[in-house]
Amino acid sequence: MSTITALSTTDVRFPTSRELDGSDAMNTDPDYSAAYVVLETDAQDGLEGHGFVFTIGRGNDVQAAAIQALAPFLVGRNVEKLLGNMGTTWRWLVHDSQLRWLGPEKGVMHMAIGAVVNALWDLKAKREGKPLWALLASMSPEELVDLVDFRYLSDALTREDALEILGRALPGRAARTEELLAKGYPAYTTTPGWLGYSDEKLSRLAAEAVKDGFTQIKLKVGADLADDIRRLRTARSVVGPDIKIAVDANQRWDVAEAIEWMSHLAEFDIAWIEEPTSPDDILGHAAIARGVHPIPVATGEHCQNRVLFKQFLQADALQVLQIDAARVAGVNENIAILLLAAKFGVRVCPHAGGVGLCEAVQHLSMFDFVAVSGTTEERYIEFVDHLHEHFVEPINVHSGAYWPPSVPGAGTQMIAQTLADFEFPNGVEWANDLALSGALSMNGNAGTTEA
Amino acid sequence: MSTITALSTTDVRFPTSRELDGSDAMNTDPDYSAAYVVLETDAQDGLEGHGFVFTIGRGNDVQAAAIQALAPFLVGRNVEKLLGNMGTTWRWLVHDSQLRWLGPEKGVMHMAIGAVVNALWDLKAKREGKPLWALLASMSPEELVDLVDFRYLSDALTREDALEILGRALPGRAARTEELLAKGYPAYTTTPGWLGYSDEKLSRLAAEAVKDGFTQIKLKVGADLADDIRRLRTARSVVGPDIKIAVDANQRWDVAEAIEWMSHLAEFDIAWIEEPTSPDDILGHAAIARGVHPIPVATGEHCQNRVLFKQFLQADALQVLQIDAARVAGVNENIAILLLAAKFGVRVCPHAGGVGLCEAVQHLSMFDFVAVSGTTEERYIEFVDHLHEHFVEPINVHSGAYWPPSVPGAGTQMIAQTLADFEFPNGVEWANDLALSGALSMNGNAGTTEA
Repeated sequence: MSTITALSTTDVRFPTSRELDGSDAMNTDPDYSAAYVVLETDAQDGLEGHGFVFTIGRGNDVQAAAIQALAPFLVGRNVEKLLGNMGTTWRWLVHDSQLRWLGPEKGVMHMAIGAVVNALWDLKAKREGKPLWALLASMSPEELVDLVDFRYLSDALTREDALEILGRALPGRAARTEELLAKGYPAYTTTPGWLGYSDEKLSRLAAEAVKDGFTQIKLKVGADLADDIRRLRTARSVVGPDIKIAVDANQRWDVAEAIEWMSHLAEFDIAWIEEPTSPDDILGHAAIARGVHPIPVATGEHCQNRVLFKQFLQADALQVLQIDAARVAGVNENIAILLLAAKFGVRVCPHAGGVGLCEAVQHLSMFDFVAVSGTTEERYIEFVDHLHEHFVEPINVHSGAYWPPSVPGAGTQMIAQTLADFEFPNGVEWANDLALSGALSMNGNAGTTEA
Repeated sequence: MSTITALSTTDVRFPTSRELDGSDAMNTDPDYSAAYVVLETDAQDGLEGHGFVFTIGRGNDVQAAAIQALAPFLVGRNVEKLLGNMGTTWRWLVHDSQLRWLGPEKGVMHMAIGAVVNALWDLKAKREGKPLWALLASMSPEELVDLVDFRYLSDALTREDALEILGRALPGRAARTEELLAKGYPAYTTTPGWLGYSDEKLSRLAAEAVKDGFTQIKLKVGADLADDIRRLRTARSVVGPDIKIAVDANQRWDVAEAIEWMSHLAEFDIAWIEEPTSPDDILGHAAIARGVHPIPVATGEHCQNRVLFKQFLQADALQVLQIDAARVAGVNENIAILLLAAKFGVRVCPHAGGVGLCEAVQHLSMFDFVAVSGTTEERYIEFVDHLHEHFVEPINVHSGAYWPPSVPGAGTQMIAQTLADFEFPNGVEWANDLALSGALSMNGNAGTTEA
């Protein structure tokens, strides 16, 4: 029997805006950041649970404060009881009668719960000596559905539906695990396509992507139509006709504008249009999907919870569902979303990149392949080659695939030195040149038109 | 020319859970709270801008931290420039390229922006010597549409649509202002209907409501069907057939459950069913609206932004739109929502109660009557008789109506002594008995099933 003795948070930020890595039509100057949480226990094993919310700079302190607000829920609690029934633990955190007013189930408070839930899963996987994907894939269908909160889902997915989906996949689990270990899980790369990159850099990185075995790349679009056409022509000429090219507008357009803009890009054989408009606009995405057909619409990285995903599926508003490891309330809610996607027969291609999103989300796709959807057909996990060196178990991506992690845990643990060096604003990476970067002042740092 | 010199926040909480005021099927033990903000300037007039986010206890500190994170956007800025173009100011805050990741446009960060925007409007109204409703009703249609961000709305409401709506109402403004001053704005009362009240208290308060001139009351439902039937029978027998009775399930049900449950309550002649399910579930509300027809469906107090409201209207998912003064990003976004409602011909009956929501939202309905929809037909502002004594200009409700405030400002300013006494956890109202109330520990204070 052991007890949680501490919940600590760190505001970790990487000065990525200096290089325009991660730049797109909406996110012009991101400083990739993590509101990071560590759970400690008094157990002799010395194991900790690590989790985080990914943000892009300002507000990372608010996100960390929200995680800290969950300390009274966990510190002093029995670890075995918390981890032994993660469904109950999830509901206890998400449905707290006072905290839920701050969402409900969306935004800063919901993501904070996600970080803590993921840290608990990290601890649980470490205790059981398994990587998270294998831990989840070893659980029975009944144990898995117990993790899911079906509240607000029952008009689209019931507990019985979920049991049927998981039961159907049960016999093939062993064979698919072998297949996963032998072939990896398909990846696509966004590395060439950031909006701030020159055409020369785009060409070079696109060629490297093909050489590295990727069969799909993704380009950011939406700031300037002429630029988009030129960059797509460049990319297509470099990769040839057999490599897929997806595009991502990062919520830049209204409905009519999205349809019009995409009509000019269709000639480049677009694999999907991602985030054409507000991530909240289910009916707008449905209209866009009809308007850009047969180009599939992809969205999900900013989708706030399972209730929105349910409606996107009900309305046929997305054809590619992009889960994110750190947007919703953690592993449990993502399992609900994977089950919804399976029920509606829609493919899941996770959003990744950021800080640690690749490390975390790969577990969910691998679990999905082994125990839920049973397929990797036309499915890819996003790959962005940023910041992996800061993780204790960085992703292993080569030959166009993610290779399954074998180390116990959820992949969410950063190197201790990174936490110290990039702590904002006191870590050495910030303290030395904060005046220069302007990250604490608003001079030249505000997003759009200044007042 | 003047400058904003300080943005300060206070975590104000009222120990309402001790009396079960405000209790309902989801919010079983609320401590009504405000994350409160004051903007100070160096102008000689000594005027301040006051605003707040309403919460129900835990997490109010997180909300205050989010407001504090906006200080670098405002402190040191020119006041006349900020107030002179509130549309630009709004966009600058809402579309900050880094902060928006924390929503986008939802939850803790969006509500924080709402508090600051409302504080700016409070300051602007005080400077112009007008109550907010009169200030807004004195602006030209062009000035008003400049306040609205039409991004993500254009498939339902364009700038031209909004100008037409406002232009149509222009000739009648003076007459309706006179009518408003003479007759007030209709109110309904929730005071009798809290779930924690005994049948005796319900009867007594319902009878008082009728005597006080209210023509509609509202009862909380959704925890226990037999209780709901008994309480509705009691209420109906007290108020007679001519008083409207609305019911509010506070998000308790799934879709099928809502339709089934309401079939048992329909005999009591229900004025509307409020928040039958998740506030995020547009398609679910649309299905419920079809299923409970002709009972109207009401929702909005937890509706996160104008993009969700747009879809609720597009899908005919609500027949009564309930704006809230402190959920979306302040006055500007609520004007967008009022315009959407006018475009779709749907009536607006604001959510109020809480802390200061009545004081704030009355300005929006009065402005709507004078300058947007031009009608109060079947429209009522919610009235709950709680905590008004803490405001510098408490609402004036009598004869079943809200009477228009005449004091300059947005109605959002609390009494200084209240801010001191109810500051959590150090104000005298908390410090003396915090051990007793358990508000800082989780013992017996967690919302649902404990882990």
